[in-house]
Amino acid sequence: MTENPRKNARTVRSPIGPDLICGDWTTEAPMRMMMNNLDPDVAENPHELVVYGGIGRAARTWGDFDKIVDSLKTLNTDETLLVQSGKPVGVFKTHKDAPRVLIANSNLVPKWANWDHFNELDKKGLAMYGQMTAGSWIYIGSQGIVQGTYETFAEAGRQHYGGDLKGKWILTGGLGGMGGAQPLAAVMAGACCLAVECNPDSIDFRLRTRYIDEKAESLDEALEMIDRWTKAGEAKSVGLLGNAADIFPELVKRGVRPDIVTDQTSAHDPINGYLPIGWSMGQWRDKRESDPKLVEKEARASMKVQVQAMLDFHAQGIPTVDYGNNIRQVAKDEGLENAFDFPGFVPAYIRPLFCRGIGPFRWAALSGNPEDIYKTDQKVKELLPDDKNLHNWLDMARERISFQGLPARICWVGLGDRHRLGMAFNEMVANGELDAPVVIGRDHLDSGSVASPNRETEAMQDGSDAVSDWPLLNALLNTASGATWVSIHHGGGVGMGYSQHAGVVIVADGTPEAAKRLERVLWNDPATGVMRHADAGYEIAQECAREKGLNLPGIL
Amino acid sequence: MTENPRKNARTVRSPIGPDLICGDWTTEAPMRMMMNNLDPDVAENPHELVVYGGIGRAARTWGDFDKIVDSLKTLNTDETLLVQSGKPVGVFKTHKDAPRVLIANSNLVPKWANWDHFNELDKKGLAMYGQMTAGSWIYIGSQGIVQGTYETFAEAGRQHYGGDLKGKWILTGGLGGMGGAQPLAAVMAGACCLAVECNPDSIDFRLRTRYIDEKAESLDEALEMIDRWTKAGEAKSVGLLGNAADIFPELVKRGVRPDIVTDQTSAHDPINGYLPIGWSMGQWRDKRESDPKLVEKEARASMKVQVQAMLDFHAQGIPTVDYGNNIRQVAKDEGLENAFDFPGFVPAYIRPLFCRGIGPFRWAALSGNPEDIYKTDQKVKELLPDDKNLHNWLDMARERISFQGLPARICWVGLGDRHRLGMAFNEMVANGELDAPVVIGRDHLDSGSVASPNRETEAMQDGSDAVSDWPLLNALLNTASGATWVSIHHGGGVGMGYSQHAGVVIVADGTPEAAKRLERVLWNDPATGVMRHADAGYEIAQECAREKGLNLPGIL
Ligand SMILES: NC(=O)c1ccc[n+]([C@@H]2O[C@H](COP(=O)([O-])OP(=O)(O)OC[C@H]3O[C@@H](n4cnc5c(N)ncnc54)[C@H](O)[C@@H]3O)[C@@H](O)[C@H]2O)c1
Ligand SMILES: NC(=O)c1ccc[n+]([C@@H]2O[C@H](COP(=O)([O-])OP(=O)(O)OC[C@H]3O[C@@H](n4cnc5c(N)ncnc54)[C@H](O)[C@@H]3O)[C@@H](O)[C@H]2O)c1
Repeated sequence: MTENPRKNARTVRSPIGPDLICGDWTTEAPMRMMMNNLDPDVAENPHELVVYGGIGRAARTWGDFDKIVDSLKTLNTDETLLVQSGKPVGVFKTHKDAPRVLIANSNLVPKWANWDHFNELDKKGLAMYGQMTAGSWIYIGSQGIVQGTYETFAEAGRQHYGGDLKGKWILTGGLGGMGGAQPLAAVMAGACCLAVECNPDSIDFRLRTRYIDEKAESLDEALEMIDRWTKAGEAKSVGLLGNAADIFPELVKRGVRPDIVTDQTSAHDPINGYLPIGWSMGQWRDKRESDPKLVEKEARASMKVQVQAMLDFHAQGIPTVDYGNNIRQVAKDEGLENAFDFPGFVPAYIRPLFCRGIGPFRWAALSGNPEDIYKTDQKVKELLPDDKNLHNWLDMARERISFQGLPARICWVGLGDRHRLGMAFNEMVANGELDAPVVIGRDHLDSGSVASPNRETEAMQDGSDAVSDWPLLNALLNTASGATWVSIHHGGGVGMGYSQHAGVVIVADGTPEAAKRLERVLWNDPATGVMRHADAGYEIAQECAREKGLNLPGIL
Repeated sequence: MTENPRKNARTVRSPIGPDLICGDWTTEAPMRMMMNNLDPDVAENPHELVVYGGIGRAARTWGDFDKIVDSLKTLNTDETLLVQSGKPVGVFKTHKDAPRVLIANSNLVPKWANWDHFNELDKKGLAMYGQMTAGSWIYIGSQGIVQGTYETFAEAGRQHYGGDLKGKWILTGGLGGMGGAQPLAAVMAGACCLAVECNPDSIDFRLRTRYIDEKAESLDEALEMIDRWTKAGEAKSVGLLGNAADIFPELVKRGVRPDIVTDQTSAHDPINGYLPIGWSMGQWRDKRESDPKLVEKEARASMKVQVQAMLDFHAQGIPTVDYGNNIRQVAKDEGLENAFDFPGFVPAYIRPLFCRGIGPFRWAALSGNPEDIYKTDQKVKELLPDDKNLHNWLDMARERISFQGLPARICWVGLGDRHRLGMAFNEMVANGELDAPVVIGRDHLDSGSVASPNRETEAMQDGSDAVSDWPLLNALLNTASGATWVSIHHGGGVGMGYSQHAGVVIVADGTPEAAKRLERVLWNDPATGVMRHADAGYEIAQECAREKGLNLPGIL
């Protein structure tokens, strides 16, 4: 270990197979999943504990990582480990149906909930940014985001282009942990994609994992490809090395018209996530250490330029959407009054799904065996025989998405289906169909687990965008229902001050007790989403609640 | 019911005695305690659902109150009711060891966590201010605060006057729900007290309940009493009808020197809690409806005047302390740069107790029978035979404090004692010594359950004042340990944006299952406080953790 408690040369991968290192699968599972988050095939910068999304970490320091592992190895099945911003702080006696791990990451009292104060604490070793699934140990690499992005692009296609994206192209920025999913999702949805990315390594990484088809070093080269593919009706993607804050305005200037415009640079983190105009990557790296204030200032000014270009596209009638990185807010703070003229992707395309508790449900095979996932894929098809879209997704995912770390699958399914899948998987573990238990979880940005007024809860029908009672109730209820680990985070996705959200993971270890917990947790968790949207007045949610027989005393 | 869903002529009191209305004591208890919070002998303004602290409510509307009662009446012992800012939003299947009620009140995403946004939501019927124990149903009237205040004044006496407050007097403002405890606590601690209060009803209420000895309508009259009493070495108190923002500077001008200065007007809520200089009560009431912005502006300006006077006392070497109403912050925002020159009462007097998990532990007799409390008083003396201070407190409390609503007792006891008391009370319920079960809880402003940088976590040794992972972990752990109800609030005490905290209540119904839960919850809850302070570097806490054998992996 070096002097810096966050740097380490060690390579971490989750153990695989059916043999336990910890006392029980409910403690083994969080250990494997934390390690899996730092697998070099999964994490963006594993040696510095960074999983994804700028500085989203799995543990506060390497010392804390080791102590979490040690604690889980000795944790009894009636004990609970508390993790406070990536540091294991206490082991307490609870009971078997209680979670084994409870996590709170980056939560700050509102008045102090900004990057300045966070960074001050972080410097003193008192903080860790947990993003969403980084600090809650259920990140599964880029696949996690592919289906969400796919659904978003497909819905955009339905709304604006009669459901057919053939010959259309999408302009975006950023090919990082989440953004890297864009070209693949676009292609799966039938569109071409031009993604501007300033880091050549990120482009190469996406080429290697087949998430992107081609790479270009000049705008002319990239536009030529797009022109060729769209004319031929081929769905292909190109990563253009460059700065989105240069390229977007240049396209406006040239009068080039993409068919959809969005962006996934890490604009939510102005110090670490967005390359300022005119800077080299090396300069950026150096200045982040030596003069973070300057980096922030320049990055914010550059974002304003990029958002201005997005507004220009929007003004021409081109569907333009903020992909949840808070870039409109920064531009607005920098003086761009009409930055919110174009919508966020959630109210535009995702909310109708959330109203039915549909969201980023996912699972991972602790065996490490890809066959376990293929078998669960098959089980999903069996249990949801009529969902063509889902069957297509499973086929395409199998074909086009390489597993990273522990094999995993994501399916956007909702209330009434999640618990059926979970119990079926548990049955498959019990009867030996699967080599080892699976863990089942989701992203924090789900139907009932997030308050994030510039993203997931933007423009709620009743104006309750900023009410964060909902994700807190979600976390409490999941704890009460017997999830294996539960987390409450602040600032994920859109940065400090702008979001509060909760995560949940539960292990299907094949026991009858797990079956009961799965039934409760995987019903209650999406049900809180239906409840939250029903309360806000969405008819789809109210109908769903009635149909599923939810008991919502003050609402229905 | 009138047009206003928050106004009602109905009088609510908790049912008493051993017969159940709900299915079980774990559902009966939250119902009785919510009703008890609105008992006219307990609540400040029960017909508007206001329990204490400005606008701290027990339920969002009277309709919600009724629906909460209905839900609890039919709730099964393996179900959990969710309450979102005073509204019952869902009933979900959990299990017997899970809480029966989970509550989240007034939580807002940080960037929107201010009074303006809260008031906007409140107007739309989307919010409720839960204060601390108002919205979490464990307010027990002024007694709750008497011991805290008593300990504070006594400690101030030890630090500044050799432990003897005879012939000394305390100047303060505000005789509301909490502030009304000050004259009685001062007298119990051996001091005289002059309390400035603008509402004659509040003074009369305190006279009736024997919390204050005399009333004065002019400053001269009040000062004459103080002079007479201090000279005679008598500990007595007077309530002066007036505006603290007038009287405090007037005293400075006259060169009068109190021995201790503090204030408990509801400065945390500038719209509803603080009478502006020169305004009549009637004017204030009207303008709060017709021009809240003006009220706020004038109140804030007046607070600045009062804080300037407090700074003047402080500059003369008079012990001056902020009693947790955020008045320094308002004055600072109004331009008083050195507003924080005098300390908050927590770092000054309370933190050493918090380091050992000592805080506002309390219980209430669901039987309604005062004898049940006297028997538990006796049990406490038996189990803690060497704590003279505590024995004195119990004797004085019995003599001087009238019960309000359900008979209740508060004792500041810490880790290692709370669970012993809880289990002993459960035993007393089991063997019929008590007429009915008791509920056991605490204030939110306890050792491990609050992040409030201007009050409970002001000036933490490591600078972690604003880290709110701790109260969230506390709530999650109490949920996992089997508390009967658990709550997460925002903005209690110091107002929107300035605090996050958690509450817990558990019922001792005499069953063996309750005994197990009590042992876990009443150990774990204060233990999180010791953990939080040990992590911050307090030696008292680290010693306590070692002595009690806590397992704190990343800390010890
Ligand atoms: N569903 C959602 O809500 C959702 C989904 C995906 C992403 N997001 C948001 O999108 C952002 C990206 O997420 P991520 O995980 O991919 O982050 P990341 O940090 O892993 O990747 C960001 C990428 O942007 C590149 N980049 C930075 N500045 C650039 C510039 N000026 N021009 C071109 N490229 C630039 C970086 O090199 C990096 O590869 C985050 O803010 C995230 O919160 C939200
Ligand atoms: N332990 C703690 O941290 C702690 C303890 C007690 C009180 N507090 C804080 O103290 C404040 C008071 O609490 P409360 O429950 O008594 O509130 P409350 O609203 O019930 O009472 C406030 C009282 O102040 C009076 N008042 C308002 N403006 C006045 C003025 N200008 N001059 C004189 N009197 C005035 C009101 O008439 C009212 O009686 C709150 O901000 C509370 O959070 C904190």
